[in-house]
Amino acid sequence: MNGAESLVRTLAAGGVEVCFANPGTSEMHFVAALDRVAGVRSVLCLFEGVVTGAADGYARMAEKPAATLLHLGPGLSNGLANLHNARRARSAMVNIVGEHATFHRKFDAPLTADIEALAGQYSAWMRTSTDSRTVAQDGAEAVAAALSPPGRIATLILPADTAWGEGGPIAPLPPVPTRSPVDEERVRAAAAALRGGARTLLLLGDRAVRAEGLLLAARIAAKTGARYLAQTSNTRMARGAGRPPIERVPYPVDAALKALADYEHIVLVGATAPVAFFGYPGKPSELAAPGSTILTLAEPHEDLIDALGRLADAVAAPQRVSLPSAARAAMPPDGPLTPASIAAVLGALIPEQAIVCDESVSTGRAFFGQTHGAEPHDWLQLTGGSIGLGIPMAVGAAVACPDRKVVALQADGSGLYTVQGLWTQAREKLSVLTCIWANRSYAILRGELAAVGALNPGPTALDMLSLDHPAIDWVAVARGFGVEARRVSTVREFADAFRDGLKPGPYLIEVVVDA
Amino acid sequence: MNGAESLVRTLAAGGVEVCFANPGTSEMHFVAALDRVAGVRSVLCLFEGVVTGAADGYARMAEKPAATLLHLGPGLSNGLANLHNARRARSAMVNIVGEHATFHRKFDAPLTADIEALAGQYSAWMRTSTDSRTVAQDGAEAVAAALSPPGRIATLILPADTAWGEGGPIAPLPPVPTRSPVDEERVRAAAAALRGGARTLLLLGDRAVRAEGLLLAARIAAKTGARYLAQTSNTRMARGAGRPPIERVPYPVDAALKALADYEHIVLVGATAPVAFFGYPGKPSELAAPGSTILTLAEPHEDLIDALGRLADAVAAPQRVSLPSAARAAMPPDGPLTPASIAAVLGALIPEQAIVCDESVSTGRAFFGQTHGAEPHDWLQLTGGSIGLGIPMAVGAAVACPDRKVVALQADGSGLYTVQGLWTQAREKLSVLTCIWANRSYAILRGELAAVGALNPGPTALDMLSLDHPAIDWVAVARGFGVEARRVSTVREFADAFRDGLKPGPYLIEVVVDA
Repeated sequence: MNGAESLVRTLAAGGVEVCFANPGTSEMHFVAALDRVAGVRSVLCLFEGVVTGAADGYARMAEKPAATLLHLGPGLSNGLANLHNARRARSAMVNIVGEHATFHRKFDAPLTADIEALAGQYSAWMRTSTDSRTVAQDGAEAVAAALSPPGRIATLILPADTAWGEGGPIAPLPPVPTRSPVDEERVRAAAAALRGGARTLLLLGDRAVRAEGLLLAARIAAKTGARYLAQTSNTRMARGAGRPPIERVPYPVDAALKALADYEHIVLVGATAPVAFFGYPGKPSELAAPGSTILTLAEPHEDLIDALGRLADAVAAPQRVSLPSAARAAMPPDGPLTPASIAAVLGALIPEQAIVCDESVSTGRAFFGQTHGAEPHDWLQLTGGSIGLGIPMAVGAAVACPDRKVVALQADGSGLYTVQGLWTQAREKLSVLTCIWANRSYAILRGELAAVGALNPGPTALDMLSLDHPAIDWVAVARGFGVEARRVSTVREFADAFRDGLKPGPYLIEVVVDA
Repeated sequence: MNGAESLVRTLAAGGVEVCFANPGTSEMHFVAALDRVAGVRSVLCLFEGVVTGAADGYARMAEKPAATLLHLGPGLSNGLANLHNARRARSAMVNIVGEHATFHRKFDAPLTADIEALAGQYSAWMRTSTDSRTVAQDGAEAVAAALSPPGRIATLILPADTAWGEGGPIAPLPPVPTRSPVDEERVRAAAAALRGGARTLLLLGDRAVRAEGLLLAARIAAKTGARYLAQTSNTRMARGAGRPPIERVPYPVDAALKALADYEHIVLVGATAPVAFFGYPGKPSELAAPGSTILTLAEPHEDLIDALGRLADAVAAPQRVSLPSAARAAMPPDGPLTPASIAAVLGALIPEQAIVCDESVSTGRAFFGQTHGAEPHDWLQLTGGSIGLGIPMAVGAAVACPDRKVVALQADGSGLYTVQGLWTQAREKLSVLTCIWANRSYAILRGELAAVGALNPGPTALDMLSLDHPAIDWVAVARGFGVEARRVSTVREFADAFRDGLKPGPYLIEVVVDA
C-alpha cells in the first residue's frame, strides 16, 4: 500500500465519502488509489473553482467535509476564491493539494509555486507531508481539523513521492473537539439586556438560523419584545412554512443603517458585529446605531443552540409560540418577469425540502418576502462575496442530498465565473434546477457606481457593466455542457418551465428579466 | 481630478493603451475615469483568469504592458493561475487590484483578504497606495517596473478612497532600465566551448527564439557544428518559411534525456538549465547529460541578442547561412483527424503573419515538424504549465495585433478552464480562429499515469481522465458566447472550416480527434 492509498483509506475511515477533483500528474497516485478504496466517490470537475465551491455546498448540507483534489499551486489558485467563500461560511473541507516530488521541488520546474503561501490564506490547518509512511497520520489530523467547530478548512500538501512511496498504517481519526459551552456570564448579560426594556436585537448567524435556533429566538422574542434578524449572508437558513420568518440585515448601507437604527442593544448569536459590505464616501462602516451596545452571546464555534436555550430559560420564554403565519405566495398573473413576479413564482413553486442555492445578487433582493410561506426549505447564500459560487455550490448540495431538489437561483454575471459546473451536474445526473436571472448586465454595479459617488457615468463606464452585446445564450451554453435548458420571458412560461425542471436530473431556465 | 483619474492619465502617459477588466464596487471610480481619458481601451472579460491571460498574450505581442483591473483579493485570486504563466513568460503587466477603502479594511467585511500576500507570489513590484495624491506616482513606478527587462509583473493595490479622493498631478514615467550587456568573459567562455570540438548545444529561450536570435544561432551553428534547441515552452517563437527551423526539448522525460544525451556543453541563451516538468520515480530531474557542463551566455533580462552577436563574431561565424529549406506541408488526403493529419493541415493553411496561441497539450506534440515550412508566423506557448491560458492569450494577442490572424490551437480539457474568454472575442470582434482538439479526455494524464508508475488503473481512475459523458458540445458553447462555430471530423472538413475561419472575427472549430 503506497502513501496515496494509505491516505485515501484514512480519509474514508474518517468519514470522508466524497472527493471533488481536478487532478494532474502529481495527483495520479491518489487517483489510482480511489480505484482500490470503496466508499469515496470521486466527482470530476472541469475547473478548480467548481471543486472548492462544490466542497463548500457539500459541507453545508452534509455537515462534514468532502475532500478536494487540486493540482499544485496553480490548481489551488483557481480554487482560492471559493475557499475564500467557504472560510466565511465556516465550511468543513479537506484539501489535498498535489505537489512536486520532494526531490524535484528545488529545480523550479514550470508549475512550481509556493503552495503554503497561497493555501495559508484560507486554511485553519495546513501541512506539507514529508514522508509516505506518515501521510495517513497527516490525513487523519486534517480530517479532525476540518471537523473542529464550527467547521474549518484543512489543507494537506502531498508531494508526489509521499504518494507513491510505501505508506504507513491507516490512521484513526484523532479526537474532534465539540462546540464549547458559553460562559454563564454572557447568558446573564444578554438576559439583562433583554429584560431591561431597551430595544434589543438578536442578530443571528451560523447555526442560529437553522430551525432550532430560529425557534429559540422566536420564543425569546415572544417573551421580551426583542426582534431578531439574520446576518446579510448566511451559510444555511431554515425557511418556509412552519419556520419563524426572519429577515436579513439589508445589503445597501442606507437600508442597513435604517434597519438597525432603533436598537440600543445588539446580541450576537453566531453573528459578527454588522459592518458594511464596502466602505462608501461619507458613510459609516459600522452599521449599529451610534451609542448602542453590542453583546456577544455566542461565537460561531461555540454551542450557540445551548446558549440560546439557556437564554430562553433565563428570560422565562414560553415553550410554545404562535408563529406569524406567512401565507404561501399566490401565483402572480401572467406578465413580464420582474424581481417581484419572479419572487412570487418562487414562493408558490419551491418544492418541499428544496435546497435553495442563492447567488441572485441584485435580482434576488425581493425574494425573501415572498418565500417565507413557501414549502419548508433550506436557503444557502454567498458568504464571502466572491461571485462564482452558485453553480458549484449546487453541485455539492446535490451530491450531499441526492433525495432533495436543489434550486439554484443564479445571477447571470456571477454564473459565468464557474459555468463549467453545469457539466458536472450533467455527468453526475444531479437534481439541480438552475434559474439564471438574465438581466444581461452587472446590474448591481449600476447602483454601486452611484453609491460610491461616481456619478454621471459615460458610455465607456456603462459599457463595462453590460453583458448585452452579444447577449449570452444560456440555453446553448447549458446544452453544450449536457444540461437540458429553456428560455422564458413571461410569468407563465417561467412557472411552466419551473414545474418541468422539478423532474430528476439537471435543468436550466434562462429567465429573461425585465430590468 | 480624483486619484483614479490621475492614475488612468498616468498609465496612458506611460504608454498603457489597454485595460483588461473585470471590475467591482471598489473599482467603480477607476471605471468611471476610463470615460474621461482618451487612449486607454477597456476590454471587459467575464472572469479574471481571462483578464490576466489576455494581458499576458497582449504583452507578448505588443512588447509593452496592458493594465488589468481586478476586484479585491478574490478577483485577484481568480487571475493568479494566469499570472503564474505570465511570470514564467516574463510578460510585462500592470495589475490594478481594487481594495477596500483604507478606513474600511479593519472591519473584515466579507470580501476582505490579504491582497499583498496573494499578489506578492507573482509580482516583481508591488505597492498598496496610501494616498489619493500619490496614486499617480505609484502608477508611473508600476509601469516602469513592468517595462523593466525582460518584462515584469507590477501590482498596484488601490484602496477605494485613494481612487475617489483628490488626485495629484499626472506622473511622468521614471527611467526604465535597458537590457544590460553580458560580461565579455561569458562570451569568451561560450566561444571556447564552441571552438573546443566538444559537442555543444545552444539552448535558446526568451528573445533568442525570435527571428534575429534564431538567425544568429544558425550562423554560429554553421561555423562551429553546434546544434541549437529551444526550451520546451517558449513565450514567443518566430517560425515558418525563412526562419531557421528549431525543435524544442521534448516534454516526456525519456525523450528529453535522449535529446540532450550527446552534448558535452550546453550554452544557455535566455534559457534555464533544462529540468523535467515533473519528478518521476527513478528518473532524474535534471535533463542535461551527467558530466556535461552548463554555461550561461545570457540571462533573460540581459541583452541576449547583443551577446549572441558578439558570440557569432568571436567564433567568426559567416554573415550568411543557407537555411535548411523546410517544405510547406502538403495537404494530407481526406481521412480521419489524427495529431499527424491535423499537423499537416496546419502546416498547409496557417496564414502569413499568423499568431499561433498554442495550448494543444498532448495533441500538439506532432505539430512542430509539419509547420516549419508554413507561412511565417509567431508561435506562443504555455510557459507556466497552468492550463487555461489559451483562449485568454488569444484575446490579448488579437487586441495587440488587430491586423494579424490569431490561430488558437486548444486542447479541450484546458480550454474549459477559461472558456468565458470566447465571449470577449465576440464582444470585441477579435480575429481569432480557435481549433479545439476534442479528444474528450485529459489525454496527457493517461500517459502520466504510467509515467509515475500508477499502472493498471481501474475504471474509477480512468473515468477521472474522461470528458466523454456527456461529451461537451463545443459548437453550442461557442455559439452561446456569440462565436460562430462548426464541428469537423475529417481532414477535408477541417481544412474547409479552417479556410472559412480565416475571415475576420472570431470562429471556432470543434475538431473531433481520433485518439
